[in-house]
Amino acid sequence: MIEDKNPQRTALENLGEFGLIKHLTQHFELNHESSLKGIGDDAAVLDFKNKKAIVSTDMLVEGVHFDLSYMPLKHLGYKSVIVNLSDIYAMNATATQVTVSIAVSNRFPLEALEEFYEGVAMACKMYNVDLVGGDTTSSAKGMIISITAIGVAEEADIVYRCDAKPNDLLVVTGDLGGAYLGLQVLDREKEVFKVNPNNQPDLEPYSYIVERQLKPEARKDIVELLEKLEVKPTSMIDISDGLSSEILHLCNQSEVGCNLFEDKIPLDPTVISASEEFKMDSTMIALSGGEDYELLFTIDQKDFDKIKGNPNLTVIGHIAPEEEGVHLITRANTKIALTAQGWNSFTS
Amino acid sequence: MIEDKNPQRTALENLGEFGLIKHLTQHFELNHESSLKGIGDDAAVLDFKNKKAIVSTDMLVEGVHFDLSYMPLKHLGYKSVIVNLSDIYAMNATATQVTVSIAVSNRFPLEALEEFYEGVAMACKMYNVDLVGGDTTSSAKGMIISITAIGVAEEADIVYRCDAKPNDLLVVTGDLGGAYLGLQVLDREKEVFKVNPNNQPDLEPYSYIVERQLKPEARKDIVELLEKLEVKPTSMIDISDGLSSEILHLCNQSEVGCNLFEDKIPLDPTVISASEEFKMDSTMIALSGGEDYELLFTIDQKDFDKIKGNPNLTVIGHIAPEEEGVHLITRANTKIALTAQGWNSFTS
Repeated sequence: MIEDKNPQRTALENLGEFGLIKHLTQHFELNHESSLKGIGDDAAVLDFKNKKAIVSTDMLVEGVHFDLSYMPLKHLGYKSVIVNLSDIYAMNATATQVTVSIAVSNRFPLEALEEFYEGVAMACKMYNVDLVGGDTTSSAKGMIISITAIGVAEEADIVYRCDAKPNDLLVVTGDLGGAYLGLQVLDREKEVFKVNPNNQPDLEPYSYIVERQLKPEARKDIVELLEKLEVKPTSMIDISDGLSSEILHLCNQSEVGCNLFEDKIPLDPTVISASEEFKMDSTMIALSGGEDYELLFTIDQKDFDKIKGNPNLTVIGHIAPEEEGVHLITRANTKIALTAQGWNSFTS
Repeated sequence: MIEDKNPQRTALENLGEFGLIKHLTQHFELNHESSLKGIGDDAAVLDFKNKKAIVSTDMLVEGVHFDLSYMPLKHLGYKSVIVNLSDIYAMNATATQVTVSIAVSNRFPLEALEEFYEGVAMACKMYNVDLVGGDTTSSAKGMIISITAIGVAEEADIVYRCDAKPNDLLVVTGDLGGAYLGLQVLDREKEVFKVNPNNQPDLEPYSYIVERQLKPEARKDIVELLEKLEVKPTSMIDISDGLSSEILHLCNQSEVGCNLFEDKIPLDPTVISASEEFKMDSTMIALSGGEDYELLFTIDQKDFDKIKGNPNLTVIGHIAPEEEGVHLITRANTKIALTAQGWNSFTS
C-alpha cells in the first residue's frame, strides 16, 4: 500500500547505512541546553546538572503494534515518539530527548522512511524534545521501531507507582476507550476495502476515536497543570494497556486495594455511540481497550479541592487497604474483582 | 536448532507480557549509586550529579546481524550489550546502565529468552553496568534486539570524533580482523554441517578468531588505561565496521586527512594464517571486516612517550591536513586512497 501512494521510490541500498541516518536526521535541531551532543558521534552527551535523568524504552513491531495498511507512516512516527514520552510524563518529569531506531525490509523505499521521520520531527517539535541518537538497519520482514525517551526532573517531584496510600483519590485524565474503538472502525473499513476497493469510507462521524488511535497525544499538559495546581500525585502511571491493568499495577506496587466506580469512568459521547454500534460494553472497553495514553494517578484527599471541577481530571475511585482487594463498583452497585485484561502481545 | 538443544519448552504466552519481563529481569541487581530506580515503573531514574550522561543505542536483527544457527543465545545476549558499551567507551566515558528490548516470534520458548538474559547478566556483571529498563514483545519473524547504553563522564574527559589535528598520531587497540575471520570459519562449518550433520568440527585452531566473533569484549580497560597513563585522546571512535570506515568517519568529522601504514596494522598470528587459508588479504580484512570492537583514537605527538611500548596500543599512522586526503601507505610504499568498505546492512 505504501508503494501505491508514493510514485517516487529510492532504494535504501543506494544510500548505505551512514548516508541513510544522516539523510533522515539532518534537519533535526537540538533545542535543549541539556543536549550537549546529538547524532553524529559514538553516543549522545547530555547534561542534567543536579537534576535526575528519567529513561524509558519501548519496541513497536509491525503486525503486532501497528498495521501499515491503515496507519500512515507519518502518524506512526508521531505515535512511536508519543508512546514513549507518555512514560516520562507518568513519572511527573519533563521529556527532553529521544533516540529512534528502526529496522525495515527492502520493500520500504527511502520516501517511506522520510515520511516516518516527518512524524518523528513533528512529535519532537510539539513536545519540545531533541532527537539525539538512533540506528537504521534492515529487517527480514516488516518494520520494527525502538524508541528510548529521556527526561529530567527534580528528585522531589518524581512520582513512582508504589506510593499510593489508603484513602487517596484515584484520578484519571481525559477520557478512555477511544483508541480501541478507533481501531475497530479502521479494521471494519479495511474489510470493506478488501471487498470493494472503490468504496470511500466516511470516517467523519468517527473522527475523534480514529484520531485517538492514529494520532494519540501524551499528557505533557497534565504534568504542567499539576505543577500549576501545586498537586504532587502520590503515585502515577500512564494508561497504555487499559485502565484495569494499570490500576492493578499501581495497587500491586503500592500494596494497596482500590474501589473503582463504573459510573465515574469518563467516556466521550463518540465512545458510547460506537460501543453501541459495535455491540460492545463501553466499560469493558475503557477497562481493557488500551492505547489511550492518559495518565492515572492518586492524590491525597486534602488535594481534592485543588483539582475539583477541572475538566481534564476525573476522580474515579479511591485507594483502600490491601486486604480489601481491587474492585469495580458497578452502576448496579455490585462489587466485582478487577482482573488484568491488559493487552498481551504473545497471544494471537 | 534452539528447540533441539533444550528439551524444556515453556510457551511465552503462558506468562503474559508483564510476567515475562518480570521473570527475565528479577535477578538483576542495581549496583550503581546513579541507578535510583530500575525496572518496574514507567521509566528508570538515574542520577549523574554534576557529570554528563552519555547515551547510545543500537538495533540487532536476526539474519542481518546474527545467525542463531551458530550464535548461542547466551553469547548473543552478551555480545548485544558489549556492542553498545563499546560506544560509551569510545566517548572515554564509564558505562553505567543499559536497557534491553527484544522482539521474538512464538517459536522461541521461555528457556531461550532465559538463556539470552543469562548472557545479558554476564555482560552486566563483567562490565559493571545496571539493567534499568526494557521491553519484550512478539515479532512476526525472528528476533530483534534493541539496546540503549548509558554512561557517565566529566565534561573535560569526553572525547569526540571531531577534534583530531594534523600531526596527531593514529592509534588502535588490540588487533584487527579476527571477528570477520571467525565468522568465515563458522560459516564454513555450517555448510559442512548441512552436508554431514554427524561431522564434529574441530574449531580449536580457530578458537581466538571464533571467540572474537561470538564473544567479543568492549575495551573498558583502555578507558582506564588512558586515565592511568594521563593521556586524553584528541578524538576516538570504536571499530564496529572495519578500520577503513572508522578512519574515514574520524577524518571527515575532524576535517583532516590521514596516512595509515599497512605494515603497522596489528594482526594476530591466527588472523594471518586463517587469511591465507581463506585466500583473503589480511589487510583488506582488517580494513573492512568489522565487529572487532577495538578503539581507534588520535593523540597529540607529545603524548607518544606515555603510550610507547604498551602492548595494547599500536601507532598505525598519523593525521595530515585535510587537503592531503586519507591514504593507505602499502608495504610496497605505494599510496592508495582509502574508501569506506564498511559493512552496509541494506545490500544483500
